[in-house]
Amino acid sequence: MRQAVAGPEIERLIQLLARLPGLGPRSARRAALTLIKKRDTLLGPLSEAMRVAVERIVVCGNCGNVDTCDPCTVCADANRDPATLVVVEDVSDLWALERSGAVSARYHVLGGVLSALDGVRPEHLNLQSLVERASDPAVKEIILALNATVDGQTTAHYVTQSLSHLGLTTTRLAHGVPVGGELDYLDEGTLSAAIRSRTAF
Amino acid sequence: MRQAVAGPEIERLIQLLARLPGLGPRSARRAALTLIKKRDTLLGPLSEAMRVAVERIVVCGNCGNVDTCDPCTVCADANRDPATLVVVEDVSDLWALERSGAVSARYHVLGGVLSALDGVRPEHLNLQSLVERASDPAVKEIILALNATVDGQTTAHYVTQSLSHLGLTTTRLAHGVPVGGELDYLDEGTLSAAIRSRTAF
Repeated sequence: MRQAVAGPEIERLIQLLARLPGLGPRSARRAALTLIKKRDTLLGPLSEAMRVAVERIVVCGNCGNVDTCDPCTVCADANRDPATLVVVEDVSDLWALERSGAVSARYHVLGGVLSALDGVRPEHLNLQSLVERASDPAVKEIILALNATVDGQTTAHYVTQSLSHLGLTTTRLAHGVPVGGELDYLDEGTLSAAIRSRTAF
Repeated sequence: MRQAVAGPEIERLIQLLARLPGLGPRSARRAALTLIKKRDTLLGPLSEAMRVAVERIVVCGNCGNVDTCDPCTVCADANRDPATLVVVEDVSDLWALERSGAVSARYHVLGGVLSALDGVRPEHLNLQSLVERASDPAVKEIILALNATVDGQTTAHYVTQSLSHLGLTTTRLAHGVPVGGELDYLDEGTLSAAIRSRTAF
């Protein structure tokens, strides 16, 4: 670049936007320009929404979710099944399960998965607090909703072992053909799992 | 969706992020989560950069560029060739040309192109101010850097006619094979243009 296209304020806005996932340097410039053009309808409100988020968002001390209250909306919801804890890797997984509406229980966000490659060891995850929460006599089942990757499954095994002394039912998500999925595009591992876990029609 | 995943503050942040070009509802959620996780290093600074932008960004009264000063950095730059005016459709085109470093002149942002379909007529564009600027005796050449689309070329013709009484040199960008481009992937129009405008090797 020969010189800055615009003032340092705009350059800084572009640089920060480019750090968002899904936006590269080029799309960050497009986003910045859109923001500048829609100053009153988008840039102003977004700036304000971010300021509110900076001030008010906290991590739930109970489950690790992010929300504007602690305990979070999910933990504070009295209608949820107290007998089940759903263990997830990340807040995004919690959000995905909530969107599906598939389960009405509380969650526990590990904050990652064990990874020899990335040097993530058990002490880096929220495992101790999981053991404490699972020790509550009301809890009967732990659903391991971890990614079906090597690290995810390793973590699932580790969590199961860590909780084995509590005598809980531990389950994991079913493997199989995604709903709407075409067999032709699926890998062998998924197809094998779907065949093994076939159900009566 | 059964219920809101998190508080209304986070939902609002996601909704506003989803209005940025390049981000859909799903990637907006990812972006929001990244922002929340990097509260101090990304969310805070971005919020502040946007607040500064809301307060300080103005449209240059001279050329139509956006900047934090009026006249803008480009118009205020005394080292630029005063004999040339580069006519562009949008601020993003101005930025693209500035990044290329191909020309050291001042610009004029039309703010759109003529379009019968979208109902964009000459009075909707910054044409009157272009005629005024082009009337400056120092200006000798108008470079029409408009998109090579039907609307862009229609606009180029209209601008040329509007300025014809001033006796200026009017040029347009060359058509041809993009640098690094493969012939196989180019349309017939581009290849025809590249053959017609072939140069000595």
